[in-house]
Amino acid sequence: MTLDDCRALDHADPLRELRDLFTLPDGVIYLDGNSLGVMPTATPARVADVVAQEWGNGLIRSWNTASWIDMPQRLGNKLARLIGAAPDEVMCTDSTSINLYKVLFAAMSQAIDSGEPQRRTVVSERSNFPTDLYIAESLCRERGFTLKLVERVEDIPAALTPEVAVLMLTHVNYRTGVMHDMAALTEAAHAAGALTVWDLAHSAGAVPVKLNACNADFAIGCGYKYLNGGPGAPAFVWVNARHASRFEQPLSGWFGHAAPFAFTPHYQPAPGAARYLCGTQPIISLSALECGLDTVLAAEPFNADGEPMSALRIKSLALTDAFIALIEARCPGRFTLVTPREHGQRGSQVCLAMADAAEAQGNAAYAIVQALIARGVIGDFRAGDAQTPHILRFGFTPLYLSFEDVWHSVEHFVQVLEKEEWRRPEFNQKNAVT
Amino acid sequence: MTLDDCRALDHADPLRELRDLFTLPDGVIYLDGNSLGVMPTATPARVADVVAQEWGNGLIRSWNTASWIDMPQRLGNKLARLIGAAPDEVMCTDSTSINLYKVLFAAMSQAIDSGEPQRRTVVSERSNFPTDLYIAESLCRERGFTLKLVERVEDIPAALTPEVAVLMLTHVNYRTGVMHDMAALTEAAHAAGALTVWDLAHSAGAVPVKLNACNADFAIGCGYKYLNGGPGAPAFVWVNARHASRFEQPLSGWFGHAAPFAFTPHYQPAPGAARYLCGTQPIISLSALECGLDTVLAAEPFNADGEPMSALRIKSLALTDAFIALIEARCPGRFTLVTPREHGQRGSQVCLAMADAAEAQGNAAYAIVQALIARGVIGDFRAGDAQTPHILRFGFTPLYLSFEDVWHSVEHFVQVLEKEEWRRPEFNQKNAVT
Repeated sequence: MTLDDCRALDHADPLRELRDLFTLPDGVIYLDGNSLGVMPTATPARVADVVAQEWGNGLIRSWNTASWIDMPQRLGNKLARLIGAAPDEVMCTDSTSINLYKVLFAAMSQAIDSGEPQRRTVVSERSNFPTDLYIAESLCRERGFTLKLVERVEDIPAALTPEVAVLMLTHVNYRTGVMHDMAALTEAAHAAGALTVWDLAHSAGAVPVKLNACNADFAIGCGYKYLNGGPGAPAFVWVNARHASRFEQPLSGWFGHAAPFAFTPHYQPAPGAARYLCGTQPIISLSALECGLDTVLAAEPFNADGEPMSALRIKSLALTDAFIALIEARCPGRFTLVTPREHGQRGSQVCLAMADAAEAQGNAAYAIVQALIARGVIGDFRAGDAQTPHILRFGFTPLYLSFEDVWHSVEHFVQVLEKEEWRRPEFNQKNAVT
Repeated sequence: MTLDDCRALDHADPLRELRDLFTLPDGVIYLDGNSLGVMPTATPARVADVVAQEWGNGLIRSWNTASWIDMPQRLGNKLARLIGAAPDEVMCTDSTSINLYKVLFAAMSQAIDSGEPQRRTVVSERSNFPTDLYIAESLCRERGFTLKLVERVEDIPAALTPEVAVLMLTHVNYRTGVMHDMAALTEAAHAAGALTVWDLAHSAGAVPVKLNACNADFAIGCGYKYLNGGPGAPAFVWVNARHASRFEQPLSGWFGHAAPFAFTPHYQPAPGAARYLCGTQPIISLSALECGLDTVLAAEPFNADGEPMSALRIKSLALTDAFIALIEARCPGRFTLVTPREHGQRGSQVCLAMADAAEAQGNAAYAIVQALIARGVIGDFRAGDAQTPHILRFGFTPLYLSFEDVWHSVEHFVQVLEKEEWRRPEFNQKNAVT
């Protein structure tokens, strides 16, 4: 694959004009949209309008006149199309961690109410995103459940014993880029009498998700990665319709009440998805998230059968295929591919580890990422431990990345390695946040 | 009191220039800063910079380079000065409801750990803000506690029996404007072996609060009322230093972890106030909140003894005194004063009920508020029930209100009543949100 090949792929790319929906800084190839998505060009004006007009001029009246009160549901309805949910099933609200607390609590409550006193285990992966494990730890301790962590993807089905109440997984693993088979694992969980909680942080806006078609139970996810909602954007929560009316909300704040402005002293949950809300929502941040959702919807990510995300998915796989091919061709023997080569198991990211055993134990992965960042190729580093290698992680957002970007990013890899730039001291000092 | 008297008070007001820190719409007298504060003039440019520069150009790097990671604590340190807390004791984060869940859970945990199995009651007021009662209901049900609601302020001390684990109060009542004696009630609670949880939603930035001097245990509050942080601004949480190291966080998300970017699978709470955080914080909304905090700090609300809020408090009481005097002089016999006349028991709001028994049962309070809004005098309505009257509620923010505003607002009252404008059909149709 040559630079001209990449340019030809860009020329043929039906999504190439979507890049114009974003404002990218000069000199940056941004391979970190799985950590914080790029700013949509429409966002500054929309946020400015919410601040100066809706708040500044409308003041308290804007809860009605600017429909602030409807924002979590309006945004949720936009997002629903991207994750295979039905209208009025999704709310954009709070953080991923808090939404996970809500749905895991609700899933546990069903086990408690089931009359099966042995069903008190939550199964997840040790490599799941830590905040998911932390929330599960807290709820398990408080409610008398056990958290069981499996080491390998292939061990999950065998872990679904009669003790399991909930299978809690992140659909695309943040460290490895492995994508689970949601349909098969949901079916296996249900066959074992367990419910499923899916974290879509690295899926929504990145890969096709079919929550209802998979018959999933609960899902949550992040607004600031592939949905381009801005730093710390509100997250989202989905509950299968069959669980909605008995959804028990521990964070029973007034925005989830059937009549929040009646100011009655007892909690009565709202009949629909509004019960997934808790307190007053951050309107300015929600308005930025709406601009981000609109960029993904602008891709018209629906094929002729109404299947979501087909065009984005095709380009995402082509971008990650190209990156893998170029890394292997131009940096031979330097890296091990951590992300699966099989399309059906790959998210929208590519993770590498150092192939050399000494380098894998040392600082090379961290320092190469820093040297790339200094050249304007922004990816990130995720530390390993005794069992797992250090990771160089690169996210590929098909909305704003080109095949030429992929070419140039690998050219920077070649330069960093050939010139041994990564050995410079300034790339070997760890920052607080990476 | 005449219009000239009001103008003389404005002339002598040492805080009168603070109004220039705000952008108020033309033709509006805003008496609803206790529901949503006014936009600081500095906010649009600051938010625009966070969006276009820090996010748009800095992208993921801004967690370090723009110190996003420090925002909850940096803002918390600004707020600490206004509520009598010490540095590094306060975090600005999440919503009021969610922060209440955290601190009430932690307070309950202390009772559970105390070895006093009978201490399983939470005491509050029936007229407390509903979201506080809803959160308490949920936690009491889940953890085997009883929620006991008292009807009258004077009944609180007698309710502090040996069964009481937590006294949970809103310092200034949202409906009535009654301000509790935090020092005395905290002392009474401690004498009964109970802990205190204070909701400062209508206090922070409005009245002097001395959390440490009162020896309070836990406090939370709202960023979008007197702190002018914008619609749905992040809230705040404070924990007395003596409880900090054993603060048990149910919402154990990664931002509260001792080393969030080490990505370890087990939760280890951060040593300080960072453990009050849960997930990733909404940076754009936090940046607006910081501008709001700066407006209150610009009032230099510290007297010569370092006591906070003295100048703002003096003006707040003078404004509410003037409003009460003018309403009683110019609308004689039409309204009952719900808010205490005694300064020591009054927040920064004045609540009225209809004096006439028939009007008190009917739509008059609601319709008068709507007729005033149509004239640009924005207050709000809070519905009563069988025990409590309908309320016309007016908040007085000394940062941006003048005595002349008070005069004109009462002049509009007189016009609405004399012309019977409030009987018009359009003022008698209820909106979704008021």
